[in-house]
Amino acid sequence: MKTIQTIRELQGILAEEQGKIVGLVPTMGYLHQGHISLIERAVQECDRVVVSIFVNPLQFAPNEDLKRYPRDLKRDLRLAKEAGADLVFCPEINEMYPAKPRTTVSVTELTHRLCGASRPGHFDGVATVVSKLFHIVMPNRAYFGLKDAQQVAVIQQMVNDLNFPVEIVPCPIVREEDGLAMSSRNIYLSPEERKKAVILYQTLCEATKQKESGQLIHASQAADFIRKKLEVISGLSVDYVEVLSYPGLAPVQELGQQTSIAAVAVWLGNTRLIDNVIWSSEER
Amino acid sequence: MKTIQTIRELQGILAEEQGKIVGLVPTMGYLHQGHISLIERAVQECDRVVVSIFVNPLQFAPNEDLKRYPRDLKRDLRLAKEAGADLVFCPEINEMYPAKPRTTVSVTELTHRLCGASRPGHFDGVATVVSKLFHIVMPNRAYFGLKDAQQVAVIQQMVNDLNFPVEIVPCPIVREEDGLAMSSRNIYLSPEERKKAVILYQTLCEATKQKESGQLIHASQAADFIRKKLEVISGLSVDYVEVLSYPGLAPVQELGQQTSIAAVAVWLGNTRLIDNVIWSSEER
Repeated sequence: MKTIQTIRELQGILAEEQGKIVGLVPTMGYLHQGHISLIERAVQECDRVVVSIFVNPLQFAPNEDLKRYPRDLKRDLRLAKEAGADLVFCPEINEMYPAKPRTTVSVTELTHRLCGASRPGHFDGVATVVSKLFHIVMPNRAYFGLKDAQQVAVIQQMVNDLNFPVEIVPCPIVREEDGLAMSSRNIYLSPEERKKAVILYQTLCEATKQKESGQLIHASQAADFIRKKLEVISGLSVDYVEVLSYPGLAPVQELGQQTSIAAVAVWLGNTRLIDNVIWSSEER
Repeated sequence: MKTIQTIRELQGILAEEQGKIVGLVPTMGYLHQGHISLIERAVQECDRVVVSIFVNPLQFAPNEDLKRYPRDLKRDLRLAKEAGADLVFCPEINEMYPAKPRTTVSVTELTHRLCGASRPGHFDGVATVVSKLFHIVMPNRAYFGLKDAQQVAVIQQMVNDLNFPVEIVPCPIVREEDGLAMSSRNIYLSPEERKKAVILYQTLCEATKQKESGQLIHASQAADFIRKKLEVISGLSVDYVEVLSYPGLAPVQELGQQTSIAAVAVWLGNTRLIDNVIWSSEER
């Protein structure tokens, strides 16, 4: 496995591999089993797998956790290699942004709700850096985890609208044994917060059961059900609970008529956690 | 020469030509000698030349001339073939925008002045459709005329910021015998307006002489000189006259210290005409 820091070197290597199927796994590093599952899937489906590790300042607001975002490149490289990656692209900030960027890729409508409402500008930063990575690597396939389901929807929309020649591969959420969705930010949690964090997935599972047994019929009922379960937890503050169509992220009335997502974001102390479950229209 | 209307067919043909140098000449059709010069240059420098003909609604404001923009596909195809194009891509609007696009590519700073000030949203429309065309064709080189000098600056900025794997080739303005810059919109001019239109280039040439002889020293002097020459023409209304750095389009003080552009836009009756001259810093 090669570790590469410059765009020029990466493109030089990739230029010699024309005709091969290239897979890209874009990450912000501090890899966990969720990232590993993306890399392993890419290894199965592609001839060459590029993992990018870049904590993208554009997608953090000034008040967010850019500075304290966890980093451990040495460990990341070991994990990426074990998972079968061929190339790890880990540029410095100056390599990705040699001057103040003046170009922004923006996706509307899909970004007004959920994390887009709580984190203004976040998805512009994501769409812009993913555009850059797509142009640098020119992958045939790019792998994204569905924990960030809104991100997947935004990127698929961008790819469709701008005719990017890449296939987006959404991959299932990977969870800890107790159900907590894997996230680099889980390391922020105190032991007590870590125990409480399991309530997100527990509540989403309960809502799924209630929906399947016909006790939750409307999207608003489901959102209320989830919100009430979360609000009673001490030290937890709800950022949002929404049940929307997926991937369109539009309001829905009755559940089951279209694929929808129940998405939650909460603060546990100073840590923001998100989770979701997608209910396909066929399941009902 | 093949004429192609669908993205799928175009990509199918281009996929079989991997390894060849592909040149793209994006146009809105109604080809004139300026476009032809771009195609001929591309033919010299590339193995395969794609000319796109698409009147892009995104770059027209509701009050602009989208509906009456001149079109003559049959003539365009003949001219493109004579110039040596291999493929003409002339999609319908529904092919380029099968649904309402939610994704916009925006370039800031460069777009606040000149045509960007007079035509809000215009350069977002340009950057977005050019992104689409670049992704559809994946050219090695793309050819743009310097009559739209701000467009060239915006697209080069976008390519740099987003790492598009394409070389932008700016090409000189092609003029009528009397100096009027070639433009599809010249056909709107009445015979009387057509005669008056020569004042744009005449004035830019006079300003260049005055600058070279040391009589125009500051950018503001040069802009005033040009403006006064234009304002006295009956039936002509000045939209803007600006002398700025190029391609940065920032204010400049003394001329000759950096490459700059003297750019004008005027209305002659209902027709908006633009022209410019670029003064390189070495020329002084």
